[in-house]
Amino acid sequence: MAWKGISDAVIRRLPIYLRVLEEVRDKQPSISSQELGAKASVTPALVRKDLAWFGEFGKQGVGYDVGFLQDELRKILHLDEPLHMALVGVGSLGHALARYNRRRFLEDPIFTIKLVALFDVNPKLMGDTIDGVPIYGLEEIARIIRELEIQLAIITVPADAAQAVSNTLVDAGIKAILNFAPVQLEVSDNVHVANVDLSLELQRLAYYVGL
Amino acid sequence: MAWKGISDAVIRRLPIYLRVLEEVRDKQPSISSQELGAKASVTPALVRKDLAWFGEFGKQGVGYDVGFLQDELRKILHLDEPLHMALVGVGSLGHALARYNRRRFLEDPIFTIKLVALFDVNPKLMGDTIDGVPIYGLEEIARIIRELEIQLAIITVPADAAQAVSNTLVDAGIKAILNFAPVQLEVSDNVHVANVDLSLELQRLAYYVGL
Repeated sequence: MAWKGISDAVIRRLPIYLRVLEEVRDKQPSISSQELGAKASVTPALVRKDLAWFGEFGKQGVGYDVGFLQDELRKILHLDEPLHMALVGVGSLGHALARYNRRRFLEDPIFTIKLVALFDVNPKLMGDTIDGVPIYGLEEIARIIRELEIQLAIITVPADAAQAVSNTLVDAGIKAILNFAPVQLEVSDNVHVANVDLSLELQRLAYYVGL
Repeated sequence: MAWKGISDAVIRRLPIYLRVLEEVRDKQPSISSQELGAKASVTPALVRKDLAWFGEFGKQGVGYDVGFLQDELRKILHLDEPLHMALVGVGSLGHALARYNRRRFLEDPIFTIKLVALFDVNPKLMGDTIDGVPIYGLEEIARIIRELEIQLAIITVPADAAQAVSNTLVDAGIKAILNFAPVQLEVSDNVHVANVDLSLELQRLAYYVGL
């Protein structure tokens, strides 16, 4: 399913709602927008507005059916079946994220994003695996993405290599990238990039040490 | 220096301006709000508005003196001298972040955030170091933070341990925390927490694979 034109701010909250629903599902069959909002740190009105973008999920006076809303949110987020992911750049951060993601996938039944391929420029790493996931050369990106039906990618290469890697991924059909390189990637409008820039996060936090 | 009541959205952009200034400093003595805005992906008006919170830095028709604005932004962000940081939770992610941060600090002269202490619950790690930074037990947090004048902390412990670690850090005087644990930490109003939740980031990105 796909809904065009919904703001990223709305999309950002959906996984948080999903996490709340997972927490309460063994304890209660339904949840009000008040309770869902309180646990997600937003107002009940915003919960209702966010969910109304995608359909009529609640019942007046009853609230939302927890299991039903979970299923619907999973479908909206493409988390209703395993989603294949690649990671490019197996340095110390890439290595740690690969292990973190694999552990998460194996231990958490609702985490459906599966890392299936790693890529690096270093010839010494070729043929190695991390927690069973093989490492390939960068020249294999297009072939492996096609063969393994990979739809999501993490970039953990150095800043000066990131744009070229991003271009290769996008040319191979990737539409969603989580970028850890400290650069602003240029991509076409139909590709979505989320940036995690640890240096910027620390530098802005430093502001608050003096307050 | 400290300015109360300035929104976090403003503070978030300051390290981005700083990064742009660093890029251009060897090429030009001054920069216009047009050029600074273009390179930081914001409007010139927003650049002028953001900087006006902190003083009169630009000259009509000339723009901003690059070196002067760098110095001022560093002072505002407490990046004008080394800032001591701790990391709690030396699992695979914590280990990678420790190495990443040390490399950044050693290689990049404008990155002044220095990791000086690591903490973990595992007795087998006590006395070990990562790139020269020692690992201590959790019971040492208060003493080491005081002795090494640590002002910033990263949390990379499992979700169920994060709140207790956060409480200990805050009791020891920490005002700024970068939290990687997938929980919402409860802290008093004078403490600032930035969350990096990799699972949530991936789950929201998954939305875009179908568009």
